[in-house]
Amino acid sequence: MAFDLDENWLPGDDFEAIRRRIPIVYVNLVPIRVDESGSVTQVGLLLTASAEGEIRRSLVTGRVKFREGIREAIIRHLDKDLGPVAFARVPATLQPFGVFEYFPEASQTGLVDSRQHAIALGYTIVVAGECQPSQAALDFVWLDIDAITDGFLESEMANGQHFVVKSALSYLGVMR
Amino acid sequence: MAFDLDENWLPGDDFEAIRRRIPIVYVNLVPIRVDESGSVTQVGLLLTASAEGEIRRSLVTGRVKFREGIREAIIRHLDKDLGPVAFARVPATLQPFGVFEYFPEASQTGLVDSRQHAIALGYTIVVAGECQPSQAALDFVWLDIDAITDGFLESEMANGQHFVVKSALSYLGVMR
Amino acid sequence: MAFDLDENWLPGDDFEAIRRRIPIVYVNLVPIRVDESGSVTQVGLLLTASAEGEIRRSLVTGRVKFREGIREAIIRHLDKDLGPVAFARVPATLQPFGVFEYFPEASQTGLVDSRQHAIALGYTIVVAGECQPSQAALDFVWLDIDAITDGFLESEMANGQHFVVKSALSYLGVMR
Amino acid sequence: MAFDLDENWLPGDDFEAIRRRIPIVYVNLVPIRVDESGSVTQVGLLLTASAEGEIRRSLVTGRVKFREGIREAIIRHLDKDLGPVAFARVPATLQPFGVFEYFPEASQTGLVDSRQHAIALGYTIVVAGECQPSQAALDFVWLDIDAITDGFLESEMANGQHFVVKSALSYLGVMR
Repeated sequence: MAFDLDENWLPGDDFEAIRRRIPIVYVNLVPIRVDESGSVTQVGLLLTASAEGEIRRSLVTGRVKFREGIREAIIRHLDKDLGPVAFARVPATLQPFGVFEYFPEASQTGLVDSRQHAIALGYTIVVAGECQPSQAALDFVWLDIDAITDGFLESEMANGQHFVVKSALSYLGVMR
Repeated sequence: MAFDLDENWLPGDDFEAIRRRIPIVYVNLVPIRVDESGSVTQVGLLLTASAEGEIRRSLVTGRVKFREGIREAIIRHLDKDLGPVAFARVPATLQPFGVFEYFPEASQTGLVDSRQHAIALGYTIVVAGECQPSQAALDFVWLDIDAITDGFLESEMANGQHFVVKSALSYLGVMR
Repeated sequence: MAFDLDENWLPGDDFEAIRRRIPIVYVNLVPIRVDESGSVTQVGLLLTASAEGEIRRSLVTGRVKFREGIREAIIRHLDKDLGPVAFARVPATLQPFGVFEYFPEASQTGLVDSRQHAIALGYTIVVAGECQPSQAALDFVWLDIDAITDGFLESEMANGQHFVVKSALSYLGVMR
Repeated sequence: MAFDLDENWLPGDDFEAIRRRIPIVYVNLVPIRVDESGSVTQVGLLLTASAEGEIRRSLVTGRVKFREGIREAIIRHLDKDLGPVAFARVPATLQPFGVFEYFPEASQTGLVDSRQHAIALGYTIVVAGECQPSQAALDFVWLDIDAITDGFLESEMANGQHFVVKSALSYLGVMR
């Protein structure tokens, strides 16, 4: 998952303790471009470096803070990762296309986050402008839908996040 | 329901016969305006005159034609009823917020269409531009969410369409 | 698609003419078995013979008739294809997991039905009892989720129906 | 919200501190009875006593614990509040009908929980058996859909929970 610059809103040690004791609410955002008819044409993924120095593609993702609305959290994470001129459209409904459970160890869901137990609400986000990722992410790349094979996502994404992208594509009617 | 100018793509008599024999696929579109956070602020309804001369508020609605994609039908009906500068956003997913069954006679669903048995897919449509309704509709009016009471919708809309609007508002998280 | 025994409710010739002129409403049903926790464990598919004599796996699928409720149509098709002791659970909501557009010729959606333009509402159906398919279908087979590979569905199902099954699995949280 | 007997899985003081610092994941469950066709006929609500001694109706609701699956949490809360012979059906999909944000003070969402910031996933739960609520709840009562007026829910439920029930009814196609 992309490194969350805002995690130190709580003293770091405190949050490290908390995230080992209760599930943490996340949003998992799948940036997309659509054509005039509303059909998805591209999916955008971040290129980030893992702690081990591997380059991975990842979703735009992050926590919901205390007293922060889910929409506010979506906007905050989009701003951070896509920059100020992305003109990303916050969903009008909070009904997510899926709910994703990341456990600190390998689990039935296949989604893993060694730092915590995260429960992520999945939303697709139509982006109308240009993306300028922040420092934390190395890059942000649009991928043509037609060029995305299942094997590609699985090999490029860590912790089971390819499943979130595949679920999003399914929800968007992309036949695979 | 708003009069569908395009219904004569089939010789009128033929379609009149067909719509009495099988269910007809419709889209029921709820135009909305949203604020910066994506929260709905207004709902747009057409003002139309019924065959009996009564003024009613109604959804943007219409049929899906043979070999026409649902997205194409959505665009066609939005263009017809909201005009060329509405900049309405076609949903990226075809998963509707609800499916609405209109029967030719009073029924359990409460939705009635004396002309036919219609099965309507409900979508909320974010409108970013200005609406200039076509001739068929008398007018198109934005209503502030806060000013919409349940009783208002019920008294102003015919055939149970208020239920579609209320379902849309519920889906959008508008507390009532 | 499984042959619809009920299609002759209209004189056959009439329906043949109609289905070439307007879209026909279908339900695409994905029978599933779940474990105690509600997680899907198996998907059920029909084995049917195509007009060309090929054996194919297919969904439980069929039309919604004039004046018939969608729930009634679901029950009718389940009864026909799964038999009287399937104890299939009709969904409490009509919100489908997806809407699937079958066109009479190859199209952008990838879903094809040479007979017609069909618009199908997709529902997953939990089956609690035993399935005894009717004559029309050769057989009904439960497949373990873990044993279903994407390639398998694609090779065994015609007309793009594997996409409906894959969408259903995605909706059910099956990681692939 | 119904009192959560399990909250002391963390030393009470610790949890009291945590729930004032990050959002807590909840499930909001709406027990329903359905007829043969799958249509909802009744909604079940708990009768509970508030800290101030008022009798209120409430949803079945509760937290998701660390390393607990959402389905497991649903089962745990249903067992606790509906008893061992409710035969409640855990949803096959985790896509909720809505996501509900409770803030510790009056907010735009209208949902309030003075103890915490809770983010609740809403699910409707078909109950096939008999309900025997635990000690904590005073009683569990089935209400006929036809007898539920909006005003009734609003007057009987606290903290905005009537909105969750109304959203569920909308999702289930109950015309109001």
